[in-house]
Amino acid sequence: MKMPRKLVIIGGGVAGTSAALQARKVDRDAEITLINREKHPEYSRCGLPHLISGIISKPESLIVHSQAALEQMMKIKLLLETEAVKIDMNEKIVTAKNVRTNRQTQHPFDSLVLATGAKPSTPPIEGLNGKSGVYKLRTLEDAFEIAEAARASRSAAILGGSLIGMELAEALTRLGLKVTLIHRSSEILSPMLDPDMGRLVRLKAEDEGVKFMLETTILKVAGERKIEAVETANGEILPVDMLIITTGTDPDVDLAVRSGLKIGRNRGIVVDSRMCAGVEGVYAAGDCVEYQDAVSGEPSLIQLGTVAVRMGRVAGANAAGAHEIMPPLAGTTTANLFGLEIGSVGLTMRDIQRRGLPPPKFGKASTLTKPEYYPGGKPITMKVLVNPESLKIMGGQAVGGENVAQRINVLALAIQQNLKIDALMKLETCYAPSVAPIWDPLILSAENAYRKLKFE
Amino acid sequence: MKMPRKLVIIGGGVAGTSAALQARKVDRDAEITLINREKHPEYSRCGLPHLISGIISKPESLIVHSQAALEQMMKIKLLLETEAVKIDMNEKIVTAKNVRTNRQTQHPFDSLVLATGAKPSTPPIEGLNGKSGVYKLRTLEDAFEIAEAARASRSAAILGGSLIGMELAEALTRLGLKVTLIHRSSEILSPMLDPDMGRLVRLKAEDEGVKFMLETTILKVAGERKIEAVETANGEILPVDMLIITTGTDPDVDLAVRSGLKIGRNRGIVVDSRMCAGVEGVYAAGDCVEYQDAVSGEPSLIQLGTVAVRMGRVAGANAAGAHEIMPPLAGTTTANLFGLEIGSVGLTMRDIQRRGLPPPKFGKASTLTKPEYYPGGKPITMKVLVNPESLKIMGGQAVGGENVAQRINVLALAIQQNLKIDALMKLETCYAPSVAPIWDPLILSAENAYRKLKFE
Repeated sequence: MKMPRKLVIIGGGVAGTSAALQARKVDRDAEITLINREKHPEYSRCGLPHLISGIISKPESLIVHSQAALEQMMKIKLLLETEAVKIDMNEKIVTAKNVRTNRQTQHPFDSLVLATGAKPSTPPIEGLNGKSGVYKLRTLEDAFEIAEAARASRSAAILGGSLIGMELAEALTRLGLKVTLIHRSSEILSPMLDPDMGRLVRLKAEDEGVKFMLETTILKVAGERKIEAVETANGEILPVDMLIITTGTDPDVDLAVRSGLKIGRNRGIVVDSRMCAGVEGVYAAGDCVEYQDAVSGEPSLIQLGTVAVRMGRVAGANAAGAHEIMPPLAGTTTANLFGLEIGSVGLTMRDIQRRGLPPPKFGKASTLTKPEYYPGGKPITMKVLVNPESLKIMGGQAVGGENVAQRINVLALAIQQNLKIDALMKLETCYAPSVAPIWDPLILSAENAYRKLKFE
Repeated sequence: MKMPRKLVIIGGGVAGTSAALQARKVDRDAEITLINREKHPEYSRCGLPHLISGIISKPESLIVHSQAALEQMMKIKLLLETEAVKIDMNEKIVTAKNVRTNRQTQHPFDSLVLATGAKPSTPPIEGLNGKSGVYKLRTLEDAFEIAEAARASRSAAILGGSLIGMELAEALTRLGLKVTLIHRSSEILSPMLDPDMGRLVRLKAEDEGVKFMLETTILKVAGERKIEAVETANGEILPVDMLIITTGTDPDVDLAVRSGLKIGRNRGIVVDSRMCAGVEGVYAAGDCVEYQDAVSGEPSLIQLGTVAVRMGRVAGANAAGAHEIMPPLAGTTTANLFGLEIGSVGLTMRDIQRRGLPPPKFGKASTLTKPEYYPGGKPITMKVLVNPESLKIMGGQAVGGENVAQRINVLALAIQQNLKIDALMKLETCYAPSVAPIWDPLILSAENAYRKLKFE
């Protein structure tokens, strides 16, 4: 009789849990152990800002697969509040430790998936240590803490103008707090939007009451035991009841480093197209991994739920004996901020510049989502970046009223399939007065780019 | 000095007007004459049902380019209420007639665009002749007549369950009429949706009060001067105050036939990829033309505004001396019926069967447009048809709450670019709880198709 395959997965977030579920689909008999340092099985991390705002009222609804479902239906052994502390690559044994009892356990494996995720980065701020009223948002417990603090606060500073910072700004504004967002770049949402597009979102947020301090950061916090004010690099002192730091997340690769796995220039674990981390039978997936993007072909750190779930599936399938390939990443992302849908895919102007790629021509169109004569159309602005040499689409961004996400999906398909700008110009888009305009902003932005390519 | 090019366009609808405007962009000096048999310059034909329902309150808002804009800004000579009655292909002269005065005029041309559109087909119904209360919907005047009649009516029969019939059913229901829709097929919307998908729309319309009589037609109408009842093929007699016939439109090719142009097996004018109708300098565009579809490569009659406007642009550019190519047609279409967004692209199961193509495998997914834990997600059903030999996408359909049109645009890009089902499975779609689910119905339907291809 063949021994069942032993599969250990470190990290119970979306990448790890997807890996476990996919491994179960591939191998019905494998012994699958999922080591999760958190208190709860996988929950929707992207749902946390909406839990704080109160739009989602039941925290337990964020848990996608309950412990019972994972254990009884999928036969996955789930160890909660358990942290992997050591991997013996020769003996193929993971040593784990219960974070409450400190009791250690040993988990032999035939194949292993590292899905250790990321941890919030903490910038050097004077006076931060030991002060209450300072938060980060990564886990469900973090969300509970912020929600509780917000109920007792009248003002908040948020440090970091990326998506999560903006979602928190919206959530806290909704709860009645006076919110100031401090961001080091010249415009918010710089990882996904060019400044001209990010500006549209900021103006809307300002209309809704958020105050912005751009091109600066927090140097100091003041207060006795509890934070009372923040001091920015340009000397402004802002009294606040709470501070949330959302300056990005670093791949959590401590265990990978200790285990001798290769770390890349983006500080993520290096994997091949099967998500193998350089040691036979050892895979990695999710926010702790760097992987080639579809535009430049270079390793990138794209920490998105959509990417993590797809990487997890590929890693889990391969760890269970399949042969699946992870395609290069498009980096498709969307959100709804203050009623404004936004979306992005591929590279921004800044990404392109940093990678030393040819400066793109960009096409831009601002129009309505319905014909002018039909009531209810909403303003939308789309932007598409085109490689002037290959004519391939390098990136796309949209800010506006409705249907943004699926327009970005059209661009994602174009980018993943290496299509040129003419494919977009010739796209036969849907038209109906009550649904979409006869010339979609997708086409108009492509035509605008084409004119610049031809005449500039 | 070079003589300016003389360009005559027959037909002032969307294809003809787009041709005129595009010709002007290509050739600033051309003498462009646009012969339009209607009273008004081009208006949005797709807006007419919404004018009847009252959602659009100003008919003049449907006119995209006013006579003044066309004549003064674009220097296009617009002849309204004028019909082209003869084309002398040797002498290159169009003879036109004012439909009110009967006065004839002659229009010499260097190049010509036929954009004569289509006319509503009239099925053989006994007792129809000379009876009032019977309508069709093609022109702005038709819409005014129907709107006026509806105000004085309590019940209406609609013959024909295609998109325009359904849009009228919704408009009249909204106005408080009791509406019965009679359709010869087993399910409504058969030109764009398979029966399982059309059924979802019918059930919704039934909920909203529309009565359906399927797999039958009207044989007779009763009444003295005015219609009082209709009699169906299966013997039912239905008392009604008005009848609207929407059994499709035939290409209006009378003039093309008289001028010796080639008509294809779909009864449309045959054109090459430059929209040239077989005689040098003579082009055709819009509902009067048949053209290859992107899935089968065979000539098809795809009478959509999106197609007409694109054909018009290519024909107009080429008539003015450019060299533009019309891509094969995807047949992308959308609508909002009773609050249900619907969309379709490529071929239906019936289209595929009729063309003798390999019977497709289809994938289907019914899900919510947002994650379950986030409030406000709406049910959506997507279906994708795949060629079992080439694995290429042959068609796609969607019925559901939101963002349908842009999901169909993703499939349109896939079909126009000849992509295989795995391109869709690997699509990195947008995800955010407030916007879109982590596994988009696009992906789920593709995965469902893939499983059938692999295991059936």
